[in-house]
Amino acid sequence: MERLQQKIIEEGKVLSNEVLKVDAFLNHQIDPVLMKEMGQEFARLFAEDGITKILTIESSGIAPSVMAGLEMGVPVVFARKRQSLTLTEGLLTADVYSFTKQQSNRIAVSNAFLNKEDRVLIIDDFLANGQAALGLLNIAEQAGVHVAGIGIVIEKSFQEGRKLLEEKNVRVESLARVQSLENGQVTFVEEARA
Amino acid sequence: MERLQQKIIEEGKVLSNEVLKVDAFLNHQIDPVLMKEMGQEFARLFAEDGITKILTIESSGIAPSVMAGLEMGVPVVFARKRQSLTLTEGLLTADVYSFTKQQSNRIAVSNAFLNKEDRVLIIDDFLANGQAALGLLNIAEQAGVHVAGIGIVIEKSFQEGRKLLEEKNVRVESLARVQSLENGQVTFVEEARA
Repeated sequence: MERLQQKIIEEGKVLSNEVLKVDAFLNHQIDPVLMKEMGQEFARLFAEDGITKILTIESSGIAPSVMAGLEMGVPVVFARKRQSLTLTEGLLTADVYSFTKQQSNRIAVSNAFLNKEDRVLIIDDFLANGQAALGLLNIAEQAGVHVAGIGIVIEKSFQEGRKLLEEKNVRVESLARVQSLENGQVTFVEEARA
Repeated sequence: MERLQQKIIEEGKVLSNEVLKVDAFLNHQIDPVLMKEMGQEFARLFAEDGITKILTIESSGIAPSVMAGLEMGVPVVFARKRQSLTLTEGLLTADVYSFTKQQSNRIAVSNAFLNKEDRVLIIDDFLANGQAALGLLNIAEQAGVHVAGIGIVIEKSFQEGRKLLEEKNVRVESLARVQSLENGQVTFVEEARA
């Protein structure tokens, strides 16, 4: 998605060979127009898949997911990272290891909002080592839903997330695929136009 | 906002005289169409205020805020409750006490995204004791922005949040004002039509 690539070039900050900071439009400040365009793009990519629900994770997955949900006419469910006082029964959980924080966090979704008949699109803001997406996939499997695919805003293609997900035979669509952050420069994976 | 009141009646769950659970459309599962309508309503309520930025707090404030931001053509900034590895410099922080969890949490916003010239609309999902909104107000004051008002999705009018905010001379607009949750019943504050 060209507008997203532009935005990454213009407003992203390369903090290291591994870390791209996009706090200016995705992870802290949010550009609602860009979110809408991303929602439309996810809807286009998964138009033939009969999606009935979007599953994401708080917090930065919520904005693109809600826009995709609006476009596709389906509800969004976000997995929680923190314990909720009112969300205690019928929880589907998965443990997600963060390599950067070097700790494991439990994420949770109420089984009330995932039904066996659902055809689910999983959306997240970043795909790096794939641990968050694998956790969401795990929860979807527990719920017995069909996962139509995973939509990612920014993929760091030099990390192993995509490979791990594809080994699970899941379709992965990323709106921007970062090839490298070396020398403080963002380069993207060259792709044939869809 | 009538559609929101209906949704609360139909899908909300009264857990006690103080706790209303709206996980079915706002806090866990999200109804994107309702979010859009709420965004439009916030835009209508603050149409004359020259808003340049929306300030909210993760996670449940994000969806209505992004829709309001889209409608008003302004960016959204969400305060973080968790520490971020890439968000470390130039932080404006406030401590927010949670009566339900009986603990204080630090929330943080980067000063890069709030400028003295900004006219800010603060949005949150719930107004109960007002502590989260006061924390956001505190951060806005530190940034030196003008706060045009506070937009709330669901106000529990039997708690003191509105009073505390109005004592700060801030305009508060709530899309639904819950008068009482007694006897397992939701009743709303009667209001003249806007």
